[in-house]
Amino acid sequence: MSVLVVGSVALDSVETPFGKAEDVLGGSGTFFSASASHLTPVQLVGVVGSDYPVEKLAALSERGVDLAGLERANGESFRWRGRYRHDLNSAETLETKLGVFSHFSPKIPQQFRSAPFVFLANIDPRLQLQVLDQVEQPKLVACDTMNFWIESRRPELLELMKRVDLILLNDGEARQLTEHSNLVKAARWILERGPKFVIIKKGEHGAFMFGKSSVFYAPAYPLEDVFDPTGAGDSFAGGFMGYLARTRDLSEGNMRRAVVFGSAMGSFAVERFSIGRLLEITERDIQSRVREFLQLVSFDAQLPA
Amino acid sequence: MSVLVVGSVALDSVETPFGKAEDVLGGSGTFFSASASHLTPVQLVGVVGSDYPVEKLAALSERGVDLAGLERANGESFRWRGRYRHDLNSAETLETKLGVFSHFSPKIPQQFRSAPFVFLANIDPRLQLQVLDQVEQPKLVACDTMNFWIESRRPELLELMKRVDLILLNDGEARQLTEHSNLVKAARWILERGPKFVIIKKGEHGAFMFGKSSVFYAPAYPLEDVFDPTGAGDSFAGGFMGYLARTRDLSEGNMRRAVVFGSAMGSFAVERFSIGRLLEITERDIQSRVREFLQLVSFDAQLPA
Repeated sequence: MSVLVVGSVALDSVETPFGKAEDVLGGSGTFFSASASHLTPVQLVGVVGSDYPVEKLAALSERGVDLAGLERANGESFRWRGRYRHDLNSAETLETKLGVFSHFSPKIPQQFRSAPFVFLANIDPRLQLQVLDQVEQPKLVACDTMNFWIESRRPELLELMKRVDLILLNDGEARQLTEHSNLVKAARWILERGPKFVIIKKGEHGAFMFGKSSVFYAPAYPLEDVFDPTGAGDSFAGGFMGYLARTRDLSEGNMRRAVVFGSAMGSFAVERFSIGRLLEITERDIQSRVREFLQLVSFDAQLPA
Repeated sequence: MSVLVVGSVALDSVETPFGKAEDVLGGSGTFFSASASHLTPVQLVGVVGSDYPVEKLAALSERGVDLAGLERANGESFRWRGRYRHDLNSAETLETKLGVFSHFSPKIPQQFRSAPFVFLANIDPRLQLQVLDQVEQPKLVACDTMNFWIESRRPELLELMKRVDLILLNDGEARQLTEHSNLVKAARWILERGPKFVIIKKGEHGAFMFGKSSVFYAPAYPLEDVFDPTGAGDSFAGGFMGYLARTRDLSEGNMRRAVVFGSAMGSFAVERFSIGRLLEITERDIQSRVREFLQLVSFDAQLPA
């Protein structure tokens, strides 16, 4: 089953303690697609400028990412320039140029409108709502968001929350949105406003998935070398949604497995710049990392006599 | 089997966003004993001043904590005064008065010297080494430490590391000790210097246990109300060592279960001031929380077709 993703397709310039990359493929839609396409066909909707090296996206279409919804507009592509300091925990944004993205209005191609799984990557909640007006009864809709929209588009974001099944956000965003510093309380606040599930990502500290009556936790994979954290969250979302679309099973047990696939894909994303590592890995690598996750947390709850 | 613990027995004054406590039972030895005594007999070695409300320690001796090694010295007891701000992640120390603790020289009573499990709580590494000179071939020795000793007693700490089987420390301390910001590298650095296992505690983000060829991760229990984080780490150590002493099994699988018991005891400790909650809980509460930990991380690694 296909996953439809609407998100940014950008050019990133990134500096980490380990090196520099200039104008490499980036954006939430790009990372999501590179990740999810390991598990299921992907339909990408976004916009690039006339300067975008579209030939580099061939690596995605070869992997089953349908680019029919990728608009090419006159003007400059969305560019992000950022730097990570030694601890790699938070990006410092040096420059953001929205370019053609500032006038983006998502148009979902007819053949994408019946996608059973829909991911609204981190874009203006007004646009996320526009996407929902164009799709036909998806089986599951998930969205991401960020501090900027929580601040500037709160009413639209609350409206969106009523219409999605699941929201992914990081711990800082969850605290900002809900005004609860405790994540259990933050999750409950969100679940009372629409979504059936909320995934709170804590970067190197793993991710929680809260449901109405359940909570699941997956650690981040303890990597010895985190090279570039850019795109980890979108790759997580791609692994999560890709796994659900592939298995077509929304049971609690399968949602948990999907979180682990998300964590696995996020852990690959940070091993190289851009989508470099995501394009390189095989099904065998993914399966092997998922087994390592199981090893990492497994214990037998046998109690002492 | 008994656990011998050598640590501080203090009076804490704590302020959290939820209330204040004055001169309540505190100290690493106290929290460790209150926690471990749920699982196994405990032998406590420490020192208190002439002002210590020793009658309050009856709650510990009734639980099977042998206080024969608790020295009473002339002078003031060790006092710590601290405050937690809204996020509860780090204590702000307002005052530390070492009192009689500044002249403490641990004397292990004859009947404690054959204890099979020994925990060297966070005290001067010189004193931790003195304890090791007094005990007879324990089955497992573990130690804790802190930033102050890492800075001021590095050679003694490195000497100690050669003589312990396991070291527990928090993520900041592991980074400070090893000068590696990556915890996998930090753990390897430590394992190369003596201990067979290292447990890196990350507070609300859980704990890693690294062995020579294994890694295990246990999350912190997602509590809705963390009341007072003081003593969480020592209670973790108490649950961990207590479980090992009770089960007498140092296999990898049992060490993992011990980490989960540690996490469970740490999660109880933070629910009230001082050792209030630790004195209140029953075996049934502990078993039930351990099962909740299992629920929290369980998934079935079944892969998609």
